[in-house]
Amino acid sequence: MVEVTRQGRKGLLFVVSAPSGAGKTSLCQEVTKIVPNLEHSVSFTTRPPRPGETHGKNYFFVDEGTFQQKRERNDFVEWAEVHGHLYGTPRELLMEKLDKGVDVILDIDSQGAMQLKKKYKEGVYIYILPPSPEVLRTRLMERKSDSPEEISRRLKKAREEIWNYRQYYYLIVNDDFKEALKKLESIVIAERTKMRQLDYSWIEETFIVQR
Amino acid sequence: MVEVTRQGRKGLLFVVSAPSGAGKTSLCQEVTKIVPNLEHSVSFTTRPPRPGETHGKNYFFVDEGTFQQKRERNDFVEWAEVHGHLYGTPRELLMEKLDKGVDVILDIDSQGAMQLKKKYKEGVYIYILPPSPEVLRTRLMERKSDSPEEISRRLKKAREEIWNYRQYYYLIVNDDFKEALKKLESIVIAERTKMRQLDYSWIEETFIVQR
Repeated sequence: MVEVTRQGRKGLLFVVSAPSGAGKTSLCQEVTKIVPNLEHSVSFTTRPPRPGETHGKNYFFVDEGTFQQKRERNDFVEWAEVHGHLYGTPRELLMEKLDKGVDVILDIDSQGAMQLKKKYKEGVYIYILPPSPEVLRTRLMERKSDSPEEISRRLKKAREEIWNYRQYYYLIVNDDFKEALKKLESIVIAERTKMRQLDYSWIEETFIVQR
Repeated sequence: MVEVTRQGRKGLLFVVSAPSGAGKTSLCQEVTKIVPNLEHSVSFTTRPPRPGETHGKNYFFVDEGTFQQKRERNDFVEWAEVHGHLYGTPRELLMEKLDKGVDVILDIDSQGAMQLKKKYKEGVYIYILPPSPEVLRTRLMERKSDSPEEISRRLKKAREEIWNYRQYYYLIVNDDFKEALKKLESIVIAERTKMRQLDYSWIEETFIVQR
């Protein structure tokens, strides 16, 4: 493979939001498995772990005091309160990856994404929708970890969350998981193929200077 | 599949250029086979057919008189002279497809592409490069239909052709055919997933009005 990626190129930042139940987390996890050099950013949260979730892998689970301290120290590039819990993206970990040229996928809610977009326009903002509100409800009910009150709170929140969708650059409707995954993968590959991501000096030395 | 594509959406126009020998024609042909609702636009040319080429499929082969007449009638959205032959993209056929919502891939040289870009900024401009000038030479020599003079004319022309590459939005280096094809496919899929391609009214009726 010819290396056309710019030397010292900073990683691309993919920011993915969706109402809960749209399949965002699974899509973001799967895409890092099929696309090389793409890593998932792990957020801090005050939410208790769900069954099967691991500290340091799914989230860094911390108490509210620790979270607020980090927030005050400006340790988060964005943070938000969702369903009564706090979520934040750690600045240092993210910047380290991007500086190394690793592309990062950030799976955050639209409040946080819109904060980030003001500072970081060159990020790639992707919104994921379920095919209908009914599907959203069914998916939330199948996720047995949530109580009925939690489900109806999440559904109401979903409507609010969706309000911002037009601020994103891409929209994926997660009707069929495989197809949605292919779209997400395609966005990552296409963004990497954009002219500004590439090493002009290699091209100019090879094809243009050499005449 | 939920239909999120805008009703009455115009087709997307993908414009692909490359120095000859970069594999542009094969890539454009293959991508229309794997991506649905994407058609190749057939150009007019005064170049004689190569073995295996069919009138109406690869090109509309016409004599110079016919070509000039069409050009004077403004029948081409772009036209150019390449290696002493004339090439032109028929306006009516192209517009018909785009108006029906079919995405079209146009495989034209950079002179023509740059003409088109002035009028049609919303097109998706893609440049394809071979991995090195040596590979380009080898590929041109393997194509037995061209004489040695034709090959060196094409190589010189290739250097000139490449000058414009930075005006394109995407760049694909065709080192490995399968990988280059995957990139081209990804660009088509990603462009279709862009927010402006989608049916907002469906989303707003389904998720936002219904509260």
